[in-house]
Amino acid sequence: MVRVGIVGGTGYTGVELLRLLASHPQIEVAVITSRGERGQRVADLFPNLRGHYDLAFSDPDTAVLAACDIVFFATPHNVAMQMVPELLAAGARVVDLSADYRIRDAALWAAWYGEEHRSPQLLAEAVYGLPEVNRAAIATARLVACPGCYPTSVQLGFLPLLANNLVDLDTLVASSASGVSGAGRQAKLDNLLSETSGSFKAYGVGGHRHLPEIEQGLSVVAGSEVRLTFVPHLAPMVRGIHSTLFARLRSAIGDLQGIFEEYYRDEPFVDVLPAGMWPQTRSVKGANQCQIAVAVPQQRDTVVVMAAIDNLVKGASGQAVQNMNIMLGLPEDAGLRQVGLLP
Amino acid sequence: MVRVGIVGGTGYTGVELLRLLASHPQIEVAVITSRGERGQRVADLFPNLRGHYDLAFSDPDTAVLAACDIVFFATPHNVAMQMVPELLAAGARVVDLSADYRIRDAALWAAWYGEEHRSPQLLAEAVYGLPEVNRAAIATARLVACPGCYPTSVQLGFLPLLANNLVDLDTLVASSASGVSGAGRQAKLDNLLSETSGSFKAYGVGGHRHLPEIEQGLSVVAGSEVRLTFVPHLAPMVRGIHSTLFARLRSAIGDLQGIFEEYYRDEPFVDVLPAGMWPQTRSVKGANQCQIAVAVPQQRDTVVVMAAIDNLVKGASGQAVQNMNIMLGLPEDAGLRQVGLLP
Amino acid sequence: MVRVGIVGGTGYTGVELLRLLASHPQIEVAVITSRGERGQRVADLFPNLRGHYDLAFSDPDTAVLAACDIVFFATPHNVAMQMVPELLAAGARVVDLSADYRIRDAALWAAWYGEEHRSPQLLAEAVYGLPEVNRAAIATARLVACPGCYPTSVQLGFLPLLANNLVDLDTLVASSASGVSGAGRQAKLDNLLSETSGSFKAYGVGGHRHLPEIEQGLSVVAGSEVRLTFVPHLAPMVRGIHSTLFARLRSAIGDLQGIFEEYYRDEPFVDVLPAGMWPQTRSVKGANQCQIAVAVPQQRDTVVVMAAIDNLVKGASGQAVQNMNIMLGLPEDAGLRQVGLLP
Amino acid sequence: MVRVGIVGGTGYTGVELLRLLASHPQIEVAVITSRGERGQRVADLFPNLRGHYDLAFSDPDTAVLAACDIVFFATPHNVAMQMVPELLAAGARVVDLSADYRIRDAALWAAWYGEEHRSPQLLAEAVYGLPEVNRAAIATARLVACPGCYPTSVQLGFLPLLANNLVDLDTLVASSASGVSGAGRQAKLDNLLSETSGSFKAYGVGGHRHLPEIEQGLSVVAGSEVRLTFVPHLAPMVRGIHSTLFARLRSAIGDLQGIFEEYYRDEPFVDVLPAGMWPQTRSVKGANQCQIAVAVPQQRDTVVVMAAIDNLVKGASGQAVQNMNIMLGLPEDAGLRQVGLLP
Repeated sequence: MVRVGIVGGTGYTGVELLRLLASHPQIEVAVITSRGERGQRVADLFPNLRGHYDLAFSDPDTAVLAACDIVFFATPHNVAMQMVPELLAAGARVVDLSADYRIRDAALWAAWYGEEHRSPQLLAEAVYGLPEVNRAAIATARLVACPGCYPTSVQLGFLPLLANNLVDLDTLVASSASGVSGAGRQAKLDNLLSETSGSFKAYGVGGHRHLPEIEQGLSVVAGSEVRLTFVPHLAPMVRGIHSTLFARLRSAIGDLQGIFEEYYRDEPFVDVLPAGMWPQTRSVKGANQCQIAVAVPQQRDTVVVMAAIDNLVKGASGQAVQNMNIMLGLPEDAGLRQVGLLP
Repeated sequence: MVRVGIVGGTGYTGVELLRLLASHPQIEVAVITSRGERGQRVADLFPNLRGHYDLAFSDPDTAVLAACDIVFFATPHNVAMQMVPELLAAGARVVDLSADYRIRDAALWAAWYGEEHRSPQLLAEAVYGLPEVNRAAIATARLVACPGCYPTSVQLGFLPLLANNLVDLDTLVASSASGVSGAGRQAKLDNLLSETSGSFKAYGVGGHRHLPEIEQGLSVVAGSEVRLTFVPHLAPMVRGIHSTLFARLRSAIGDLQGIFEEYYRDEPFVDVLPAGMWPQTRSVKGANQCQIAVAVPQQRDTVVVMAAIDNLVKGASGQAVQNMNIMLGLPEDAGLRQVGLLP
Repeated sequence: MVRVGIVGGTGYTGVELLRLLASHPQIEVAVITSRGERGQRVADLFPNLRGHYDLAFSDPDTAVLAACDIVFFATPHNVAMQMVPELLAAGARVVDLSADYRIRDAALWAAWYGEEHRSPQLLAEAVYGLPEVNRAAIATARLVACPGCYPTSVQLGFLPLLANNLVDLDTLVASSASGVSGAGRQAKLDNLLSETSGSFKAYGVGGHRHLPEIEQGLSVVAGSEVRLTFVPHLAPMVRGIHSTLFARLRSAIGDLQGIFEEYYRDEPFVDVLPAGMWPQTRSVKGANQCQIAVAVPQQRDTVVVMAAIDNLVKGASGQAVQNMNIMLGLPEDAGLRQVGLLP
Repeated sequence: MVRVGIVGGTGYTGVELLRLLASHPQIEVAVITSRGERGQRVADLFPNLRGHYDLAFSDPDTAVLAACDIVFFATPHNVAMQMVPELLAAGARVVDLSADYRIRDAALWAAWYGEEHRSPQLLAEAVYGLPEVNRAAIATARLVACPGCYPTSVQLGFLPLLANNLVDLDTLVASSASGVSGAGRQAKLDNLLSETSGSFKAYGVGGHRHLPEIEQGLSVVAGSEVRLTFVPHLAPMVRGIHSTLFARLRSAIGDLQGIFEEYYRDEPFVDVLPAGMWPQTRSVKGANQCQIAVAVPQQRDTVVVMAAIDNLVKGASGQAVQNMNIMLGLPEDAGLRQVGLLP
């Protein structure tokens, strides 16, 4: 059995990791840390886990974590970058679900996160954990930076267009909608049911922290600098991200549907829908799937791509398990065969 | 008292008209028609109206309707265009909430609605009932075509940019999200709570019937042909439309905020929010308001406008009452001073 | 114009008071206090109020409040009982929406609220503000204690049975469901959309603070001690309380429907539905109404009563305005004619 | 591999069966029937199944179905009772999720379902598929009648009280709340999101079809006739049933918590929560679990039991798979180890 450690398991990505790993045939969760909940059983905090885990939260202990085969960080940003150097030095391999190692440029990171990076020496080594782009590098990585939820959906939607050089790179638009769980399990007024239910709004219009991560990833694939206008929205639901992407075609394309299907032909977790069928977040609820569709409305020169994921699964914990499987040479879908919960 | 008739009052725009008119000091609803519900009291069908109306549904009767000062059509498309000619001939004035008279080109209407128009001779006379554009014409109109819900939010958002010639006209993008009430009070599988709750999706990507209406309205204001990529989405809520609009600025603009505030300075029902504050649909729930914000993310060359309305109020029945007030010379906000229901 | 002061207007009952009073023809809100939001305009905190109020929050000042004709307390418990004595001494009349003066027995209050009462000398004078029971006393009161949301629905449902001596007094059961706004506008983890949406639960089963208030009110009407088993539940919605009440009939009753209709015949804000029609919270959303139905399933000996209100209107701020109207000799429905927002 | 047939797989219990069976290691779904959707792939109708099933709907064919080891009926009532006799004769074993064989008295069935039973000769043989009561009989049954969703939660909650003779049998009360998926995947106005979202209501107060089934089951365990007042409610959510049960204790009981824990000690799918912790439907979303709690508020003589299930899993398809496992001698939890989806 592979021994897994989880740092910071009291948030939604933490409980989701535990849910997914409970059905993983080769995994044992050896340790889960939380300073605030030390001593409490995970199943008392998250009653859906009753009968599946006897594990209790413990204080983080580098030696204990380093003895694990894989350590997940399911923490807010700013935690992993302080602990990871020591863990790597002790021989651990790390999958970081937070933002700490996603951006390769330490100055850019500091500009968006408002503080200096604490282990910039690892930024060059960290592998951006989007398997559809970096599978080979992930397999041998010591440190994988799991993409954010918006970035996963936006990049997977744009990739076939950029890799095939089909669109203008400076007019990209992403209009994304997320469920409220993306804001985390924190006591904030803005995320009360009474503040969000029955309402829809944009936020972070002036600049969302996922923007530089997306532009970085898209630019790598495009081989040139990409400029994106990105507007995230909050939708009155718990889970799910739906990104609607707009780009100007460089020329008329005969078979965009075929290009998308070909691009993702061998990907287990990206599903190009049949022509004329649009993704819904409910179809991937609880599943490590990205469902994608492409269209050119009115046969004009703007292409529209829609991509739907569960922000907590393919947008976070599921993708983290996928990365782990690749790193450990396990079947990539081990523990990730859940069918979406519909209705 | 002004005597009002309502044709087809069993849908959501019908009950919303009744709700608004109940607080209108100069109005009496004299007749409301429905073939299917003939004889039933409106308050039995819609229990929120108990204590406010004794009225019952009746079969449509041209003479009775023509005796009203104003007749609202709260019907699906295809009804008004058959009844309106006779009503106008009998001296009535009409506010049509349906799509029948919104598009001036009968061939275009037929192409999008899949049937021939039945009274094309009235298309030139019908006034498009967006008061912020056509107030003077509305005042003297016999026939007002109330804008659709999406078109209201999209046009109000784009107008200041187009009227001031600030953006490219062929790269406009509108990404809109609507509550499910926009689909009407009809027994359709797709609109069940179990099919829509907790989910987000795009629909009508290939072409939504509101597109030609929007392009027509924007082109008039721009003085030139406008091309829009319009993607509507369904959000898991009852009421509200939020449109996020993208356009390429022709040149750097110093004070977009000021331009928007100036443009809508005298409008009672368009509210340009202070800089940095974004609209939420919940702030206008039940109110005849459009809240708007504008931003230029990263100070690049794409401007983003957000506009939020209640699809059943400023997007339908409230705007219809606003048109009626203008037509009758009443205070434009009579019956329309409701505060949004928050939370 | 009547001058109104509001203490503690940053919660949901505060914004709801402002919404209702905005349409009250004889009222001017002269002052609204909040230490935390001092200086902020109410319309900045609650954007639904834009265009309706220029008022800003200010620090509480007894002299300023005492100069008002009526002072509302829209505060958590423990605030009014400290400020009210001085206000009454200064000549003000008070409507307290909090729990401070609802229970006449200071020891009982202390047992449930975990602290000593700070102005027990006023408990005998305070009038319990359920107009359907205490209208005459309210009219002349200096201090009215507005009932809680659950107590309003439970008492209105049971009253006709108890006043007519129809049921056993020691086997009453109330199973109530509330929207999340009942928990207030506070940053608590338990009330996040992600924690409450799509879920239903009981809470406070061991003892909810509204229990002694309900038993006190029912006992007064019954003329004998009443014992109630009360289980509140949290439903995944913003507004609304639905109480389902069970009692054992002392003997077979011929016409319970008629008894209920007779009991509430002259009440403007209690609506006994026709036989066979059950209340829904959505029918009273935003309205100062209680809709009630009664049934005897299987013609056995258990009577079931259902009562639905909007917890923020008839369960709080609407009832407060109703009390104010009675105290001031205004029409009881002034500012309270809003039609429920359906859908 | 066990070959499974499903009759009528286009509803929510159908897609849920497919979801659960996709993770069952010993099962192959050989056939799924639907007259209306014949030829369509199940994954086209239910996109969450994409990548898990190639199966298409086919017309029902007795020979094909009889060749299966187990046939599930996921149909409305009135279908199974016509097809089951022939299937049994052909050697099949049947798990019926519909109501057709739940009530042993054909006259009672006819009274509640408004038509004659078509195969009353099987009523005596059919085993009521509540494993916690009838495990041994299920193991050898040819025909298992899966309990309804409400009956599962209500019976599991009352059983320890009745089996231990602790409460009055003629004063039982059940106040249950269900998500809208319980109403099935049918195009009905009442179940639109716009009709149900943000609202709570009772329904079927005069008599719900699950009442006789519950009373029958409880009476068997109590050994005497039980009379229940049962009020179901509709809560604005997709999945979940929460039943709050009330009963009069015959005498003071020392350790109800211990009695409940003992009663369900060996049950894999009934989870008695620790004292003071109340069930939430979200904790069992997607899981074949019933979470139960018991309390005696104010230490009086009324006991309150709360029981939460996912109506589509332990209340329908999960329980059906559990029955199948028992019938086939498979591990009872095969295919049923899913962790609830939280948040």
